[in-house]
Amino acid sequence: MLRPLGFTGNRLDRADQVRVDPDAFSAAVAHPRALCLRLDGIDFAAGEGGGLVWEPLDSADGHALMLLGIDEDGTPRFVREAPSGTRIDARSRTVMRLIPLLSGEELALYGGARSLVDWHARHRFCAVCGAPSTLFRGGWGRRCDACGAEHFPRVDPVVIMLAEHDGRVLVGRQPGFPPGFFSALAGFLEPGESIEEAVARELWEEAGIRVRDVTYVASQPWPFPSSLMIGCRATAEDAALTLDTTEIEAAMWVDRAEVRAALAGDMGAPFMVPPPLAIARHLLELWAE
Amino acid sequence: MLRPLGFTGNRLDRADQVRVDPDAFSAAVAHPRALCLRLDGIDFAAGEGGGLVWEPLDSADGHALMLLGIDEDGTPRFVREAPSGTRIDARSRTVMRLIPLLSGEELALYGGARSLVDWHARHRFCAVCGAPSTLFRGGWGRRCDACGAEHFPRVDPVVIMLAEHDGRVLVGRQPGFPPGFFSALAGFLEPGESIEEAVARELWEEAGIRVRDVTYVASQPWPFPSSLMIGCRATAEDAALTLDTTEIEAAMWVDRAEVRAALAGDMGAPFMVPPPLAIARHLLELWAE
Repeated sequence: MLRPLGFTGNRLDRADQVRVDPDAFSAAVAHPRALCLRLDGIDFAAGEGGGLVWEPLDSADGHALMLLGIDEDGTPRFVREAPSGTRIDARSRTVMRLIPLLSGEELALYGGARSLVDWHARHRFCAVCGAPSTLFRGGWGRRCDACGAEHFPRVDPVVIMLAEHDGRVLVGRQPGFPPGFFSALAGFLEPGESIEEAVARELWEEAGIRVRDVTYVASQPWPFPSSLMIGCRATAEDAALTLDTTEIEAAMWVDRAEVRAALAGDMGAPFMVPPPLAIARHLLELWAE
Repeated sequence: MLRPLGFTGNRLDRADQVRVDPDAFSAAVAHPRALCLRLDGIDFAAGEGGGLVWEPLDSADGHALMLLGIDEDGTPRFVREAPSGTRIDARSRTVMRLIPLLSGEELALYGGARSLVDWHARHRFCAVCGAPSTLFRGGWGRRCDACGAEHFPRVDPVVIMLAEHDGRVLVGRQPGFPPGFFSALAGFLEPGESIEEAVARELWEEAGIRVRDVTYVASQPWPFPSSLMIGCRATAEDAALTLDTTEIEAAMWVDRAEVRAALAGDMGAPFMVPPPLAIARHLLELWAE
């Protein structure tokens, strides 16, 4: 482990026992030092000296509270449901330019809060029957007022992987990447497959390569809007590529010297790497070592 | 790997390029040998000699088709959306007693189909605006007819783990388990945490133990209704337990001899283990080796 992965390291006690107990939840809301995270839409509101902004709970604000957790001082930390009509672009990464203002721990806390607020904003109605739903479990679920169905926040597993062949690894670029950037290939895991099967399928679909010996490396939450990035490595049977050009604009095999040059930001490197927050960068760093 | 994990080994080509191309999808539906999986509610309909039942596509049946994939002979394999009003008990495991009738490959195929059919049955309305939604992408998504929002099948990551301390591992039982059965502890991964963080949190919440050195072991889809079981191991700092008795009725540390006796089904073993399909059994087998 070179450094903690981006969006990991939230040290709040998530306090599930408080979420599920209405009396305990009410006591947390009534706590004299209880704090609420200030958001700007779905992004965080940056404080003057950097960092997240925490405000005392405003009892006049009627938007539902979600319990993020209890900190080491016993202070309950909340975030509020976004006002109806708030513009929520779940995939927007405009917040990325503000992220250097946060510590790793703050970033992890914000990332989880972002996924949760976003999920509520896009799940105000029951998918079973279409009626409005309301928060329950301290903000960690919604219950349908009409049919009683319960719904819980999504976490979408994504496999992201380096295929290796003959001392080189495969990197690719999606059509929307900034010029020159390449990353590890990735895709959503589907119902009915294991992590290992998803890795093999994605590499076959996107790059036309067959792999064996899939191994897990590391994982990271990625709150755009609610992915769990599962980083893996695999051994390719062959180096010949057949790209799915709707998904992958270009791909290439790169050796350790090339990866090291890219990680060092050398002008002569054959590609540019993802930012330090991304697990793809982490996979490349571990492989280059 | 002792044996393929339950619900893995589906060999159909999922053929994402057919799902997303309406012309290719229509051609697959029109394929003279196209087949449809017969279901009984959300369970599979067992054939006379065992095995899944595949029927020619019935053009008079108006329920939407989902493309499960293309088999090695080029035959498209489908399943249909459940008729409105079909009783769907997503967590029901009554099908478990029929499972010995299937090969591992059939079981994997059925598991994925089950998760997909179940997801559609419980997501007929748009969670964003409450309007009805309809299938698109060959059955691998729904689009809202009113607001245009797109929704995709859920896969819910679950961590399941053996904590180890001083040559023993921790097993526990939930209140609903059959008498005498113990398994690995488990819980849903939440927004904002990595796999490693979820393992540590669950062991803290459920058993009151702190762990380090979390390692990934294996994964398995679990279609009740749509879990991805992520099997891990961790090292406990201490053996003292504080149980969350709403989640865990009892827990105990067991050594290798006890685990081996349980796996062998010895009458004198201190507990009974989960069935061979379950990744918990697999984790115990790997550890006992």
